[in-house]
Amino acid sequence: MTYETLEYAVADGICTITLNRPDQLNAFTVTMANELVDAFTRVNSDDDARAVVLTGSGRAFCAGMDLSVEGNVFGLGIDRDPTLEDLHERLDDPEIKARVRDTGGRVSLAIYACTKPVIAAINGAAVGIGATMTLPADVRLASEKARVGFVFGRLGIVPEACSSWFLPRLVGISRALEWTYAADILTAEEVLAGGLVRSVHAPDELLPAAYELAHRFVDGHSAVGVALTRQMMWRNSAQPHPLEAHRVDSLAMYFTSFGDGVEGVRAFHEKRAPEFTAAQMPPFYPWQDDPQP
Amino acid sequence: MTYETLEYAVADGICTITLNRPDQLNAFTVTMANELVDAFTRVNSDDDARAVVLTGSGRAFCAGMDLSVEGNVFGLGIDRDPTLEDLHERLDDPEIKARVRDTGGRVSLAIYACTKPVIAAINGAAVGIGATMTLPADVRLASEKARVGFVFGRLGIVPEACSSWFLPRLVGISRALEWTYAADILTAEEVLAGGLVRSVHAPDELLPAAYELAHRFVDGHSAVGVALTRQMMWRNSAQPHPLEAHRVDSLAMYFTSFGDGVEGVRAFHEKRAPEFTAAQMPPFYPWQDDPQP
Amino acid sequence: MTYETLEYAVADGICTITLNRPDQLNAFTVTMANELVDAFTRVNSDDDARAVVLTGSGRAFCAGMDLSVEGNVFGLGIDRDPTLEDLHERLDDPEIKARVRDTGGRVSLAIYACTKPVIAAINGAAVGIGATMTLPADVRLASEKARVGFVFGRLGIVPEACSSWFLPRLVGISRALEWTYAADILTAEEVLAGGLVRSVHAPDELLPAAYELAHRFVDGHSAVGVALTRQMMWRNSAQPHPLEAHRVDSLAMYFTSFGDGVEGVRAFHEKRAPEFTAAQMPPFYPWQDDPQP
Repeated sequence: MTYETLEYAVADGICTITLNRPDQLNAFTVTMANELVDAFTRVNSDDDARAVVLTGSGRAFCAGMDLSVEGNVFGLGIDRDPTLEDLHERLDDPEIKARVRDTGGRVSLAIYACTKPVIAAINGAAVGIGATMTLPADVRLASEKARVGFVFGRLGIVPEACSSWFLPRLVGISRALEWTYAADILTAEEVLAGGLVRSVHAPDELLPAAYELAHRFVDGHSAVGVALTRQMMWRNSAQPHPLEAHRVDSLAMYFTSFGDGVEGVRAFHEKRAPEFTAAQMPPFYPWQDDPQP
Repeated sequence: MTYETLEYAVADGICTITLNRPDQLNAFTVTMANELVDAFTRVNSDDDARAVVLTGSGRAFCAGMDLSVEGNVFGLGIDRDPTLEDLHERLDDPEIKARVRDTGGRVSLAIYACTKPVIAAINGAAVGIGATMTLPADVRLASEKARVGFVFGRLGIVPEACSSWFLPRLVGISRALEWTYAADILTAEEVLAGGLVRSVHAPDELLPAAYELAHRFVDGHSAVGVALTRQMMWRNSAQPHPLEAHRVDSLAMYFTSFGDGVEGVRAFHEKRAPEFTAAQMPPFYPWQDDPQP
Repeated sequence: MTYETLEYAVADGICTITLNRPDQLNAFTVTMANELVDAFTRVNSDDDARAVVLTGSGRAFCAGMDLSVEGNVFGLGIDRDPTLEDLHERLDDPEIKARVRDTGGRVSLAIYACTKPVIAAINGAAVGIGATMTLPADVRLASEKARVGFVFGRLGIVPEACSSWFLPRLVGISRALEWTYAADILTAEEVLAGGLVRSVHAPDELLPAAYELAHRFVDGHSAVGVALTRQMMWRNSAQPHPLEAHRVDSLAMYFTSFGDGVEGVRAFHEKRAPEFTAAQMPPFYPWQDDPQP
């Protein structure tokens, strides 16, 4: 499968998903949203890919929603009933999914559900949905040329793509509010100081640094162990009591102790590198119900 | 309406709420609690006020509960039944509300529910409830003369005003525990290093800095967009799954796309500053049930 | 009671729990898990102990699960049914508790439930469960010789001991993921920079620093106030709404206002140190149901 707005390429165990509308500064469209959801779902069952790097082609990462597209790109409106009290139950209703559900949020939920580590390599401007789509990545690296703007306030709209859930987790509630209220364009140094990105790199060194980190995350590790680790960290840490983590921990330790854990302990005793083979997620996964992104 | 213990003044789009018992170092009383609840509720429908600055008159911000007031100021006790297993259902019961519910908590919940950005300008001593009432503000600025003390441990009582919910969000659980266990008076530099305050200012520059920040937060922005942003960040970030944010995001984007978002996109295309006019919160707001503070 | 794998010693108001298998670098066994659960439960009713310091004897803190023990140490397996959909309801079932529930998690839940401040003094290698068992401590101090490794990925297993709940709270979700994916051994300076430990000390100064901090946390303070503070901070901060904290705050202020709060205010007025005497936790404690660890 090929995409109109993305490149999906796997090499050396790493999948690179590249936003690929360079002439439009990779501006976001409904097609791009659908393709990102597809790509982040597809990579889960792509055995050649152990981790994902998300980046943009050309000089921008993603300049935000493509406002040149005709029509109201923020919400198409099926019945002009903005209460939609039953939205929660209708998230999988095709009409709601296509016309009311925030498209950026569908992308964020697909990245959240990914079973491979996700690294965002912010190569240039990341504005609006271009900024918020990076938040469900595990780690963000920035080029010195990166500029990040949570600019929704300038357009009369609100932070989307589940960013009100993700951004305070990453930078704290006070900074998240300041950045979204002020709606400024932040430099790479500013987002580094604020804790949003892990490190800042010369433009030519950004992708190599992302790949190096991706390899550190997965090389020699159990694919199932990595996938469970990702999902356990994101999901369990938001629960109201550690007991929820304990329930999942116990099942996951129990499960892996019959799987790659056997080889892990054996290799430890034999003082050699392990050769992990498990490929199936455990039967209790996912342990929370998610709608289709 | 005028207050006994506060000043409420609006100028240049910013509401300043000033704790105003300078001879008592703005010590907190039940009257002050009721007036703060009133003021933070009133400002929500005060169209002249786009943001709120909370500060103290004279040399202190608030020296804590006024212990010179006769009677047991911490809890008046209606029936000496400290189990009160039905407290949750009786929060709006007038007898419970006046005599059992923590008064500082009522203030914190009123600030939490505010639909305008709230900036605390800590001009001097902020001790006990004087410290904890600043936590639901979006941002805290401190004078070089500020001193902050979570001193409940010295009085045989506990951190109140919902501070066990707010403080770990702002400074992390370990620092929150250290500060409340040790119950020390912290300097402005210490609370800055701990991440509690955004910046430290010379005494004369504190309020100007607060106003400058307030203007950056609201000038030229949609009032409804700002209000939704505040409530989305605080409420959604505490949910156990990003799906809750997605549900609210989708409704809020859908709603604003028929409102100030239309003008925002039009102004963007016409390369001019937008003129936002929306004044009504959407019908789905508030999306969580709160008791009356 | 004496322990096979621990020392439990109380002096000067502080309980020191020392992992005590120095010839095995204090490697973790099921016996150690059971003894840690017992010790952290016992200290709650040990009136001579006001705070807890957890450390290791010899040159290591805890080198991880003792993999030299015969059998599958990660999960013994009662029925090879890794779905165990009813695990949540069966946590207190003796067969499940002994053979399926993650042993590290039982220790973490016992530390979480402790009513005295807990300080981990990481004197050397803290690897695997040796790292994760320190996370429910309120504060971690490290020797310059400390090495911390979340190495589960190298063994084909997953982070356990509720660490997916605790670690992101302490160091942020991105760093938690990086540390568990990469599964490296981190130096004392690295975990200090990451916010995991409060301070780094020369080896000889580690325990004195831990005791000094413990005394600052409890000396002259109400034991019930300290216990409530610990539980309120950990439990309330993870709730989805500050209202939950308000409910507990109100009851706790109401309760302490008839107890140590009376003496606290009196001592304040009389300008003398208070003499707190309350010993009983309030009837509403614990306000969340926990299974037996």
